[in-house]
Amino acid sequence: MSTRVVIVGGVAAGMSAAAKARRMDPSLEIVVYERSGYVSYGSCGFPYAIKGEIARVEDVVVRTPEQFAKQGITALVGHEVLAIDPGAGTVRVRDRRSGAEFSDRWDELVLTTGGVASRPPLPGADLPGVFTLRTVEDALAIRGWIDERRPARGAIIGGGYIGLEMAEALAAHGIALTLVERLPQVLPNLDPELANHVQAELTRQGVDVRLDQPVEGLAGDERVREVAAGGQRIPAEIVILAMGVRPGVELARAAGIALGPTGAVAVDDHQRTNLAHVWAAGDVAEAYHRVTGKPAWVPLGTTANKQGRVAGENLAGGDARFAGIVGTAVVKVFDLEAASSGLSEARARAEGYRVQTVSATASSRAHYMPGHQPIHVKLVYETGSRRLLGGQLVGREGVAKRVDTIAAALHQGWTVDELAELDLSYAPPFAPVWDPILVAANLARR
Amino acid sequence: MSTRVVIVGGVAAGMSAAAKARRMDPSLEIVVYERSGYVSYGSCGFPYAIKGEIARVEDVVVRTPEQFAKQGITALVGHEVLAIDPGAGTVRVRDRRSGAEFSDRWDELVLTTGGVASRPPLPGADLPGVFTLRTVEDALAIRGWIDERRPARGAIIGGGYIGLEMAEALAAHGIALTLVERLPQVLPNLDPELANHVQAELTRQGVDVRLDQPVEGLAGDERVREVAAGGQRIPAEIVILAMGVRPGVELARAAGIALGPTGAVAVDDHQRTNLAHVWAAGDVAEAYHRVTGKPAWVPLGTTANKQGRVAGENLAGGDARFAGIVGTAVVKVFDLEAASSGLSEARARAEGYRVQTVSATASSRAHYMPGHQPIHVKLVYETGSRRLLGGQLVGREGVAKRVDTIAAALHQGWTVDELAELDLSYAPPFAPVWDPILVAANLARR
Repeated sequence: MSTRVVIVGGVAAGMSAAAKARRMDPSLEIVVYERSGYVSYGSCGFPYAIKGEIARVEDVVVRTPEQFAKQGITALVGHEVLAIDPGAGTVRVRDRRSGAEFSDRWDELVLTTGGVASRPPLPGADLPGVFTLRTVEDALAIRGWIDERRPARGAIIGGGYIGLEMAEALAAHGIALTLVERLPQVLPNLDPELANHVQAELTRQGVDVRLDQPVEGLAGDERVREVAAGGQRIPAEIVILAMGVRPGVELARAAGIALGPTGAVAVDDHQRTNLAHVWAAGDVAEAYHRVTGKPAWVPLGTTANKQGRVAGENLAGGDARFAGIVGTAVVKVFDLEAASSGLSEARARAEGYRVQTVSATASSRAHYMPGHQPIHVKLVYETGSRRLLGGQLVGREGVAKRVDTIAAALHQGWTVDELAELDLSYAPPFAPVWDPILVAANLARR
Repeated sequence: MSTRVVIVGGVAAGMSAAAKARRMDPSLEIVVYERSGYVSYGSCGFPYAIKGEIARVEDVVVRTPEQFAKQGITALVGHEVLAIDPGAGTVRVRDRRSGAEFSDRWDELVLTTGGVASRPPLPGADLPGVFTLRTVEDALAIRGWIDERRPARGAIIGGGYIGLEMAEALAAHGIALTLVERLPQVLPNLDPELANHVQAELTRQGVDVRLDQPVEGLAGDERVREVAAGGQRIPAEIVILAMGVRPGVELARAAGIALGPTGAVAVDDHQRTNLAHVWAAGDVAEAYHRVTGKPAWVPLGTTANKQGRVAGENLAGGDARFAGIVGTAVVKVFDLEAASSGLSEARARAEGYRVQTVSATASSRAHYMPGHQPIHVKLVYETGSRRLLGGQLVGREGVAKRVDTIAAALHQGWTVDELAELDLSYAPPFAPVWDPILVAANLARR
């Protein structure tokens, strides 16, 4: 009897695991159960589909169940795994269309249940017109609401990546927006002085940014009409709850799969859980953070794809290792790019590091080239060892891929002085002779 | 008596050395002799000034002699150093305006005489309308010739960086162009299959590209009229000789300053020459190539600035070290970006490495985002050790700063497998979930 692999969740990590396992071993039986109606989609594309930059929400789907079937991978959408029995080696599954329940057996199980949008118990959070954004169905619902209801005013609750991307998306439909954030800044991965540039861009684009204001509730009648926050009432005919994500660990916890200190599933560098033959990958799992040397929970599509591939290789008898993350992220906020890798100053201090920082503003291109834009750079490094702990960049161009140089330095554990030595590319249309990263790193050498 | 520093050549390396030495030690006397009429300029900007993207050629000047004077640095333009006497600690100088000659003494000498445009003894190479491009005066002359003579047809001799940038610059003036290259490809730092994309772009932009055609000579009357190449006559009312650069080592050689295997001045990692108190930096000097472990001559503004700074720090009693280069370069060719770092496959084989390569074409942004463009990536790595030896990228966007990740990997001597582990930035407008560099590196892991 051939080895049967069951994968619980068919988005980035799950389908990467399936595809890799299939390439490793054509004899495997591979079944993926996905609760939603779609597999293998790039959820990071949803804001651009809602904005209208992508024609159809479904365009973010990479491959369909039919395409996976041709590879010999059975991907069943609308199938929710209700329970995992590690002792028996089975899962309990419900077909959401028919309501039928059945059991399936597995020799290898991959848990890729992803993250869940946080939905705090706010009054009125279930009103029509209030949305979270996680699945294709969520994106379709938001797009449909905009197209049918033509809301004039909207509110975004939460100033993280999804909140900011959704601000851009909704503004493109002419919706007058208020962004409400409970913290004193947007983008908590950035230190406040960098986040300031992002807030200024939001304001410049007409978004009413309200910081330090916890949401008290939502109100309406047959649909949402207003948001109550900071003692004020904000009219809104559409509300996006972008209040963060948590790992979807309910199944894991019930099955006795150990969680780590972050609350996500604990995995080793082979994506093994504490249970034999049970693997976890993607937003449900932790990842080793190379800067802190500790497990971290940084749910991102890149990590999900990499971890899924490692799990798929190993369950098929391979010996792949996930090298860990350094926490690299970038977001487009209207005309601004904001990127970070490693630890912010605030986070580094909270982790107990003694730190120094340097900040510089340098040009995206040679100073004499038209169109050059300032890039704000901040580097955080450890006092004494001078090891780089993190870097942040904000600017109107040339930020997204510049942060990769910082990611490479963090991956290797370089000092800020080693970062300053790099032979980075230069031509007047693309960089000044001293790249902004080198300008900042050189300040640390003084 | 205070220490007197004489710097021979006042462009990138020379003025970096002067500025750094001044910051290190306010008591130093610092004199810079510059043969041309300008100091401290970004010569890489000339093509864009000639194109008209920069209003005035002089806009590429970073600082004037007057501005340096305020820092206590005497920068004398139009002053040519005729000879160096290391034994006496003097230089012989001619004021090119007056013709007066004088001697000056030095305690520390910095040789930053730069590179010299190759000007082979071609018949007709001295005709009016035939130009090389190295100094502000060269750029002004080309710009003046275009503005006054309005040439309808032009020829670029040489398909290196300057040749290609000048093709874009001249084409912007409506000049019908022929590009003549003696080698079978443009951009010799790229392997042929990557250079093909560049050649296709040139052709698409209307440039008549003639490869494998050595120039036989130029002809005209009171000005250039045609180029003879490959047995054909090419009409041209303006000709740019972009036939490469050589290190300007005449003064060094005459003074007994040792040259290295590349023909440029040999320096150690402190920018010392073989003579005590004589330093060299920039395009006149070699640099340690971290990939080959040998001296290399890669004349670029970035290296010149870094080496100049190291020389300036050390002559003032510091202990700075130049970490070396990996040979990173990028060029804009019309709407294309072409970048490389480290060794091409051809160069690696010529250096004696046993190599393997992987090539991939991946998207600059998420596949569903409008405007995404293919990026062609080639990685070269050593058979056995799997050490990355070089990388090349060509595409319409997102190339210039992506090559920096390869530069970081080469700087550290990573394997291609380590490159594949990096936590690179991802957001749909800037990258696919698997960055093109990771796509290529992963192919090597299979």
